[in-house]
Amino acid sequence: MLQKKIFLDESEMPRQWYNLAADLKMRPPLGPDGKPVSPEMLAPVFPMNIIEQEVSTQRWIDIPEKVLELLSIWRPSPLVRAYALEKALGTPAKIYYKNESVSPAGSHKPNTAIAQAYYNKEFGIKRITTETGAGQWGSALSFACAQLGLECKVFMVRVSFEQKPFRQMMMNTWGGKCIPSPSMETAAGRAVLESDPDTPGSLGIAISEAIEAAVTDPTGETRYSLGSVLNHVMLHQTIIGLETKKQLAKVGIKKPDVVIGCCGGGSNFAGLSFPFVNDKINGADIEIIGAEPASCPTLTKAPFLYDHGDIAKMTPLLPMHSLGHTFIPAPIHAGGLRYHGMAPLVSAAVEAGLVKPVSLHQNECYNAGVLFAKTEGIIPAPETNHAIAATIREALKAKEEGKEKTIVFNFSGHGLMDLIGYDKYLHGQLTDYELPDEEIAKTVNLLKDYPKP
Amino acid sequence: MLQKKIFLDESEMPRQWYNLAADLKMRPPLGPDGKPVSPEMLAPVFPMNIIEQEVSTQRWIDIPEKVLELLSIWRPSPLVRAYALEKALGTPAKIYYKNESVSPAGSHKPNTAIAQAYYNKEFGIKRITTETGAGQWGSALSFACAQLGLECKVFMVRVSFEQKPFRQMMMNTWGGKCIPSPSMETAAGRAVLESDPDTPGSLGIAISEAIEAAVTDPTGETRYSLGSVLNHVMLHQTIIGLETKKQLAKVGIKKPDVVIGCCGGGSNFAGLSFPFVNDKINGADIEIIGAEPASCPTLTKAPFLYDHGDIAKMTPLLPMHSLGHTFIPAPIHAGGLRYHGMAPLVSAAVEAGLVKPVSLHQNECYNAGVLFAKTEGIIPAPETNHAIAATIREALKAKEEGKEKTIVFNFSGHGLMDLIGYDKYLHGQLTDYELPDEEIAKTVNLLKDYPKP
Repeated sequence: MLQKKIFLDESEMPRQWYNLAADLKMRPPLGPDGKPVSPEMLAPVFPMNIIEQEVSTQRWIDIPEKVLELLSIWRPSPLVRAYALEKALGTPAKIYYKNESVSPAGSHKPNTAIAQAYYNKEFGIKRITTETGAGQWGSALSFACAQLGLECKVFMVRVSFEQKPFRQMMMNTWGGKCIPSPSMETAAGRAVLESDPDTPGSLGIAISEAIEAAVTDPTGETRYSLGSVLNHVMLHQTIIGLETKKQLAKVGIKKPDVVIGCCGGGSNFAGLSFPFVNDKINGADIEIIGAEPASCPTLTKAPFLYDHGDIAKMTPLLPMHSLGHTFIPAPIHAGGLRYHGMAPLVSAAVEAGLVKPVSLHQNECYNAGVLFAKTEGIIPAPETNHAIAATIREALKAKEEGKEKTIVFNFSGHGLMDLIGYDKYLHGQLTDYELPDEEIAKTVNLLKDYPKP
Repeated sequence: MLQKKIFLDESEMPRQWYNLAADLKMRPPLGPDGKPVSPEMLAPVFPMNIIEQEVSTQRWIDIPEKVLELLSIWRPSPLVRAYALEKALGTPAKIYYKNESVSPAGSHKPNTAIAQAYYNKEFGIKRITTETGAGQWGSALSFACAQLGLECKVFMVRVSFEQKPFRQMMMNTWGGKCIPSPSMETAAGRAVLESDPDTPGSLGIAISEAIEAAVTDPTGETRYSLGSVLNHVMLHQTIIGLETKKQLAKVGIKKPDVVIGCCGGGSNFAGLSFPFVNDKINGADIEIIGAEPASCPTLTKAPFLYDHGDIAKMTPLLPMHSLGHTFIPAPIHAGGLRYHGMAPLVSAAVEAGLVKPVSLHQNECYNAGVLFAKTEGIIPAPETNHAIAATIREALKAKEEGKEKTIVFNFSGHGLMDLIGYDKYLHGQLTDYELPDEEIAKTVNLLKDYPKP
């Protein structure tokens, strides 16, 4: 019998995260005055120990023992050889997937949620606020806060709160408090509700509320948390790729030929790929592919510039690929990939020619996801389907070329909480959104007077 | 760092199932004439290789290589030491749980679904029919049929079909065909719809439709499949307990003191416990506890007798604990435990004094489930909460007695598809149903002229 799953013992977990900022020249985030943001300016929003990680250029950063202990609830995650998928494709390629869906929240998100909750607690913080769109991040942070005994308040975009009641039930079960945004709990929320009581809400408003709720707590014991984009989030996710390298070594693979992840804010992609980007910087021949939706082509079509991370312009200006913070992506089902920007570290890796972006339409992605479910068994998250579709392209290319390549992709999450997209796909009701270049030019043009990186 | 998870390599998977029927005197199923049912009479319903297993008294039965290969998509499942739960309870007991929620369908059900799909395929069958209530079994069989290239048709109780759309989306994604029952596809369904077009359907009608669809296929290439109760289902599930024994041995535990599972039809309980029942028969001192809902107290309050397995009386008479096939359990959220009878093998083990049943109310169970989610991380299925609540009772007893007992329970599934019960529990809206003895007497009394075991 062929062995499918490669496990590591808990004792073999990596003891340090890899920080790509040590190996790439990064531009600083800028404040409203166009000057670099100092750590002190971020102190009301994040605890100082996380801010230190955010600006660190140290290559290896120790993972605290308590974080390892909590990650070991589900980590190390298995690396799985996708024999049945290979067979269905008739490819000579060896396909491996890193199964991040085994976490209690069902995705890679808890990797950073646990770390962030830990650092907040260490710093004496009692409550964390955040926003969530479809609910994936809010769930992960609620789970993490439960493990560390912190309070968690999640501002969930109202339309999602109402359409996806199961996500708020998950959060509530872990003891998180999930409230629809806009809410009456913040000045920002009240202002919106006053002018538009029936608003569906937006991620921009939810971010504003979450930050306001953190910085206005008179006890000073509340901070805000973000689930993607920022450097410290990418850092925490690198445990994915570091484990993968150990697992490949166990089956005698010195290096993969192709590494693939889907790209939204960038964190699951960074998590798997950055340790391999490091190898590539040191001379290894590895193709690293970021798969994004064609309807939100941040890396494949948008310029590299300074932009806000959010539509409400609460964040500093970040150096990144961006479609402009006013860009509203088409309503594809991979909600986690509907983000106008891209993590500065991922953007910098693309700029440096270390990462190759590709874009895919959602019907191709769902087609890949259904094939995966029927062969490998697990129903993937809509976001993950982008990585699978890109993997299938590469596996078929290897078949054409007759090459026995090793392809590794990040199985970032399962789709059990997001089945409606499959239903629509199976009934032929999914639209592939073509994004006209003029539309990108329009939202990007609004940034023409911003500082340039 | 303490090691939480005990894994086995795929190469360490058990090579044989354990058949408790070799060690207990079993009474045969009876036909409408009161005479034992012969294998030939079952041949239109099940393939002969499964019927042979159903009546086998061989103690150890080889697991086919192909079944092992498909089980290894997620097996061996981890055995996990629940350190955080122990700490929260302040108990000296060592608590381990066997995590069956890691299967693609999210529960233990695929253990038998894969085996049944395999034997059907071996026998030349092309299509399998089944019924499903809340959808857990239909999902598992759809998943299994996808892996083996069989067609799968699931008759889902109409009210569940409409209230739980996500379950049918899961089945459809794996290529299963899920249709609301009653349907126009069978004579049984048409008859019900004619007299009551707005019927919510029932498990009894769905069973009738699934069996009719199998036995009336003129090609003879369709058979029916059942997800619990029958001997061969219990057999396939014993891989759970057999793995558990190997895993306990790895951490130096010769035998657990207490083994716990929740009981509906009996299959997850049998899966974990039967290998330990075998040890107990051979002299080991192990307490084996079956945890059932107080509102459906099959083992704790119902007599041992001959009864039909279904309300439609399509099945033979089975020797089992039963509340009577006309008994309708209260609408608790643990849908998988709302069954009037109990697997004949589990019933026989209780009769022989090898298994001790306990009953629990659902508020106690959800309270246990929420504590588990906050400590161990995973949100349990409502059914699983019964096993957790019984475990907590035992752990607190061990604390009182100051005994360092080893308790093992079966974590039969996750609750991500069944969050509504948690929502109601957290809002104080869950009712504990007290079942009056008279009500049991009434439905049991209807069986007074049936043959006695």
